[in-house]
Amino acid sequence: MVALSVKALQRDTSMELPSTTARLLYRAGRDVTSTAGVAPGFVQGNLAILPEKLAASFHRFCQLNPKPCPIIGMSEVGDPRIPALGIDLDIRTDLPRYRIWRDGELVDEPTDIMAHWRSDLVAFVIGCSFSFEEALMADGLAIRHIEEGRNVPMYRTSVPCEPAGPFAGPLVVSMRPFRPADAIRAIQITTRFPAVHGAPVHFDRPEQIGIADLSKPDYGDSVTIAPDEVPVFWACGVTPQSVILESRPEFAITHSPGRMLVTDLRNTEFSIQ
Amino acid sequence: MVALSVKALQRDTSMELPSTTARLLYRAGRDVTSTAGVAPGFVQGNLAILPEKLAASFHRFCQLNPKPCPIIGMSEVGDPRIPALGIDLDIRTDLPRYRIWRDGELVDEPTDIMAHWRSDLVAFVIGCSFSFEEALMADGLAIRHIEEGRNVPMYRTSVPCEPAGPFAGPLVVSMRPFRPADAIRAIQITTRFPAVHGAPVHFDRPEQIGIADLSKPDYGDSVTIAPDEVPVFWACGVTPQSVILESRPEFAITHSPGRMLVTDLRNTEFSIQ
Repeated sequence: MVALSVKALQRDTSMELPSTTARLLYRAGRDVTSTAGVAPGFVQGNLAILPEKLAASFHRFCQLNPKPCPIIGMSEVGDPRIPALGIDLDIRTDLPRYRIWRDGELVDEPTDIMAHWRSDLVAFVIGCSFSFEEALMADGLAIRHIEEGRNVPMYRTSVPCEPAGPFAGPLVVSMRPFRPADAIRAIQITTRFPAVHGAPVHFDRPEQIGIADLSKPDYGDSVTIAPDEVPVFWACGVTPQSVILESRPEFAITHSPGRMLVTDLRNTEFSIQ
Repeated sequence: MVALSVKALQRDTSMELPSTTARLLYRAGRDVTSTAGVAPGFVQGNLAILPEKLAASFHRFCQLNPKPCPIIGMSEVGDPRIPALGIDLDIRTDLPRYRIWRDGELVDEPTDIMAHWRSDLVAFVIGCSFSFEEALMADGLAIRHIEEGRNVPMYRTSVPCEPAGPFAGPLVVSMRPFRPADAIRAIQITTRFPAVHGAPVHFDRPEQIGIADLSKPDYGDSVTIAPDEVPVFWACGVTPQSVILESRPEFAITHSPGRMLVTDLRNTEFSIQ
């Protein structure tokens, strides 16, 4: 499978989508520290792979918590393809790097999961904020963590998700600071993207959602917040990953942080206006 | 004209719009302290009447400042009708009470302006926040000044409007407090009503727009702001009235505060979704 795909790299790629080109590079073993900025305009997603017996509960968890867990693609049981996200997409090889979890412990971080694939696995791809960040920047809004070359700061909140089966835990939010007038614009723009986290869930007053110190994010990096800015919080696709790991499933596979699935969908397809 | 209209009151009104009924009552001389809550579902508007030689500058002022000055109707020079807002509407009689201004001074506050009408006058009707407040309440959001039976608090800001001719001055904003999650919802809902002030212009941080003390509004009444709430500020239709009076025009007519024009347009017509 991998050999076949490497061969595919040698073909004329002039007609290929940049997203497809990126997946073929990762399939061939190319690693990157982040897929941010790869294939601009194309949707990227968080990956969660679970055994079938957990997948139904996880699917229900996503259904109950659509803001942090917007499913943009899902495989059949045991099938590594998700044609809706890319005709030739192979979820076992097409991300730069994966994390393998057993009983909630990280056991491996390979560049493909051919050796770990099982006939009972179901892959979920969950929307990510890269889609709406592109729309924010297109509107002229500056995104602080991008300006500062950092990962977006993310925080575990005191807001519980709706539980489903073994999956329960707090909402994780990402934070971007804006002046109030820009925050209003950002709310308007991200409202147009309900399938990729949509409008913010909160702004200002971090203590109201259980965040004690904005300078100490639970994931990602801290960013500068100017005195005339307020922190604006969006539901974050790290939520499902955090909830999965806390349930300590016997087996799970996720993407390695920052190394997302690059799909052939366009961000603009997710805009409802 | 008034006699004819009183006669109209005696006809069968069972097929009449509640907005038309309200106008006919005011035409017959009925006064009220406020039109808030009159003819639910129908658009109400602020009134500004100016001599033709000032009207062009004022029209341009509204064009340059659409958030505080959304024109929803306008008469021909000297014509008291605005059929787009109501087939039989007569701007000289159909509001409960008017204010007559000479050189910027209030000189009369009559229940009709038949004696003040001139062939060079142009009437402007400017959208009002009643339209979006109805949509907010329909979504389950509580509006504090309505809960507390007060007028909405309004503040002169340090934000200058774009000037046009003699018309210049600060943006006036109305304020409604919400918890952040409700404020986000309120931003989404009012974004759907660009023709009646639209999304807020600011939230929290009153000092950023030159408001020193929220408990001392420049117009209207103060309202309670709970510790977990932030003030949210919308551009306000009092702005054009304040700007007109500050220009001290030789002659102007406005509605008396709270006594708006009730039109036959429906609030839902102003929703873009």
